[in-house]
Amino acid sequence: MTIQTALKELSKMLCNRLSASDPDRNAHAQSEAHFPPCPPDAVAFPQDTAEVSRILKICNEHGCPVVPWGTGTSLEGHALATRGGVSLDMGRMDRLLAVHAEDMDAVVQPGLTREALNQELRATGLFFPVDPGANASLGGMAATRASGTTAVRYGTLRDNIMALEVVLADGRVIRTGSRARKSSAGYDLTALFVGSEGTLGVITELTVRLQGQPEAISAAICAFDDIDAAVNTVIATIQMGIPMARIEFVDAATACAFNLYAKTEMPEKPHLLVEFHGSPAGVAEQAERFGEIVADMGGSGFEWARKTEDRTALWDMRHKAYYACLALRKGATALVTDVCVPISRLAQTVEETRADIDASPITGPILGHVGDGNFHAILLVDPGDAAQLAEARALSNRMVERALEMGGTMTGEHGVGLGKLDYMEREHGQGWMVMGEIKRALDPKNVLNPGKVVRSN
Amino acid sequence: MTIQTALKELSKMLCNRLSASDPDRNAHAQSEAHFPPCPPDAVAFPQDTAEVSRILKICNEHGCPVVPWGTGTSLEGHALATRGGVSLDMGRMDRLLAVHAEDMDAVVQPGLTREALNQELRATGLFFPVDPGANASLGGMAATRASGTTAVRYGTLRDNIMALEVVLADGRVIRTGSRARKSSAGYDLTALFVGSEGTLGVITELTVRLQGQPEAISAAICAFDDIDAAVNTVIATIQMGIPMARIEFVDAATACAFNLYAKTEMPEKPHLLVEFHGSPAGVAEQAERFGEIVADMGGSGFEWARKTEDRTALWDMRHKAYYACLALRKGATALVTDVCVPISRLAQTVEETRADIDASPITGPILGHVGDGNFHAILLVDPGDAAQLAEARALSNRMVERALEMGGTMTGEHGVGLGKLDYMEREHGQGWMVMGEIKRALDPKNVLNPGKVVRSN
Repeated sequence: MTIQTALKELSKMLCNRLSASDPDRNAHAQSEAHFPPCPPDAVAFPQDTAEVSRILKICNEHGCPVVPWGTGTSLEGHALATRGGVSLDMGRMDRLLAVHAEDMDAVVQPGLTREALNQELRATGLFFPVDPGANASLGGMAATRASGTTAVRYGTLRDNIMALEVVLADGRVIRTGSRARKSSAGYDLTALFVGSEGTLGVITELTVRLQGQPEAISAAICAFDDIDAAVNTVIATIQMGIPMARIEFVDAATACAFNLYAKTEMPEKPHLLVEFHGSPAGVAEQAERFGEIVADMGGSGFEWARKTEDRTALWDMRHKAYYACLALRKGATALVTDVCVPISRLAQTVEETRADIDASPITGPILGHVGDGNFHAILLVDPGDAAQLAEARALSNRMVERALEMGGTMTGEHGVGLGKLDYMEREHGQGWMVMGEIKRALDPKNVLNPGKVVRSN
Repeated sequence: MTIQTALKELSKMLCNRLSASDPDRNAHAQSEAHFPPCPPDAVAFPQDTAEVSRILKICNEHGCPVVPWGTGTSLEGHALATRGGVSLDMGRMDRLLAVHAEDMDAVVQPGLTREALNQELRATGLFFPVDPGANASLGGMAATRASGTTAVRYGTLRDNIMALEVVLADGRVIRTGSRARKSSAGYDLTALFVGSEGTLGVITELTVRLQGQPEAISAAICAFDDIDAAVNTVIATIQMGIPMARIEFVDAATACAFNLYAKTEMPEKPHLLVEFHGSPAGVAEQAERFGEIVADMGGSGFEWARKTEDRTALWDMRHKAYYACLALRKGATALVTDVCVPISRLAQTVEETRADIDASPITGPILGHVGDGNFHAILLVDPGDAAQLAEARALSNRMVERALEMGGTMTGEHGVGLGKLDYMEREHGQGWMVMGEIKRALDPKNVLNPGKVVRSN
């Protein structure tokens, strides 16, 4: 068997850093979402780029699938080895290699997590701003083009990666980009690998942009009578050029989940959670102007979290939204899905989604990164209940259809993985064929995370 | 002949919108830089996407080169038809198709120029922020990943294009991206085509991001004793998180050129030109803090241009720098070159470049977009003087070598074109081979701007 032949060779090279034990295979068999477990044939734990290169050469020669693994926190089953082969656990390549404080960048290995990076940066006055909630690895975040609550201000991984080292399917090692802030020197290979979900190459080093820690931060929460008023508040704020560092929407169902889970006393209405970064005077001005817009739009219960601990509590609550929602239904798992639309269509899209979920037997709070037009539905299902899962899938399908009709995209930040492959042709048409042509050019034997993003011949 | 067969078919289809007249061929034979004229066999003036698709089908069938043409303002000979064939003049596809004010985006045809777009946007309170100096077409700006004075605040074309319509070599029409602010739905084809210099497809429609016109603007100019002090001022400003809309560096030689050309009375020293955008209070605070940094760094002659006309005069002077420098030597043409380095290495790179030019017989002012680490040398040569051109090329070569040694790139914004193809392997190594693999996958017959960006087999 080709996979077995590859594993034999890998075992010789990696010794006990190639494991086919059940605990290791099972630990790399699942993600945080509802997909059934899918263990790889073995797990490899490379220590450096040269080793990754040798692993890929062997696997490419024998046609053995290689599926890169970060922390396993992705939501669409990206890292599941659906065709067997090797799960390539990048966790041992987790060092911060360099911090260039004057240039505000850092060079990291892919297994370093964003929280560990920010911990190491503490003394520098700098931080890595992208925050998807989970303590994901930076390699995984790059591979899925992650974003989260702060993208409205600091951009997504697309905007925060300056350079990559990538190992290609045949073991060649390339470097893309540089530490220069911009370049016009040929095709933007960095952007091509960011978001390619491990199907074009394995990221073995990243140069990331850093930001200065803001001098002042203020955060607030306020309630609205309807979704429209909340979204219009955001549109007006953006149009006035008031720079928000975060602007999060939670619907009435999510507020209810918070109340039950975190013992808060939020009115069961749509809410906005907002944060400003800047100079003390700048933040004060932004907060004041935002307050005026909220008042104009009929917002209420406006509360500023000026102290660090209040702010931490606010975002902690937001980050635990997934668990708060899961707790609404005892023992439930969730189909978590996200779409992204032009902000002018956001209120309508959320309202129609809300009505659609309400008309179904599924419990499904809605929340999202409203400044980007990006929102999530957390569709609760009882594990193993095929009818409920089908119902949740149908709701998710209609969310995608609706998003595409509105000029948006099937996923703003969760990625394609297993869950959204069926929509690729619908969203991209011939463009999906072009993705396939690129895949075949760079990975002709289809060994890199096969079956994801594109369909092979 | 294959080109002649293609031209015959194109002529049938386009009638008088295919021209082989000398005036039309000569108008598409040169760029703004020093490259010798290179007329195409014919010029096509398509009116819509369907026509572009038919043109490409015909040319692909017959192996006839197609070189897209915007306004001909690029600096590295990108749009020269060095292998003959058809210059595809996109000038008749110059409409603003839609403005979505709430979403702050616009849909445009590639022949629309940035000044025409901003003229049309006047009443909306929005503007397209990227400003490379020349009144380039938006298609050309996307194809070369242009940037300019405002990139430090608003990014390059990479950051300001949300979606594209592209015609591929074989005539297929694809759409990349969407009007959503972000997406994780597969490979970032938009980023792949931005900066591909017409070698992967012809851009026939663009969705661009717009910005709100700032409530308040202030601009200033100040002098420094040396390059180091000027660059350290910029580094400190960035690190304090003071958002600059523009921050331009000109060296003493450029100040001298301004004095002669525009009758200014600048001290013959390095200068910074800076602009802030924001709320009145925000701009005032930023200006004050910037002034403090300048004083700390020993800057002098600080002058604020608060009135619109003073500000216009300041940026007008900056935009005419090329002509001011050309005027330093009567009848001269110029080899204009740019590199980009990490900002911590900028002072050293500029100083070494200055010393190198001073030790040569060439006059060559240096100026640049210092907030990005990007600078230009305008190397003056007498037309037809091969020895001078060789000298200028050698200076430019050493600039590239120096930039790469500093961890930077051979070009921050001018692109590869003809002038920098020889450095691609040096900068990208195996990555350049990967660019070639992508090119061959998407344009197997090498008809799209052949000989640019990659080398064909």
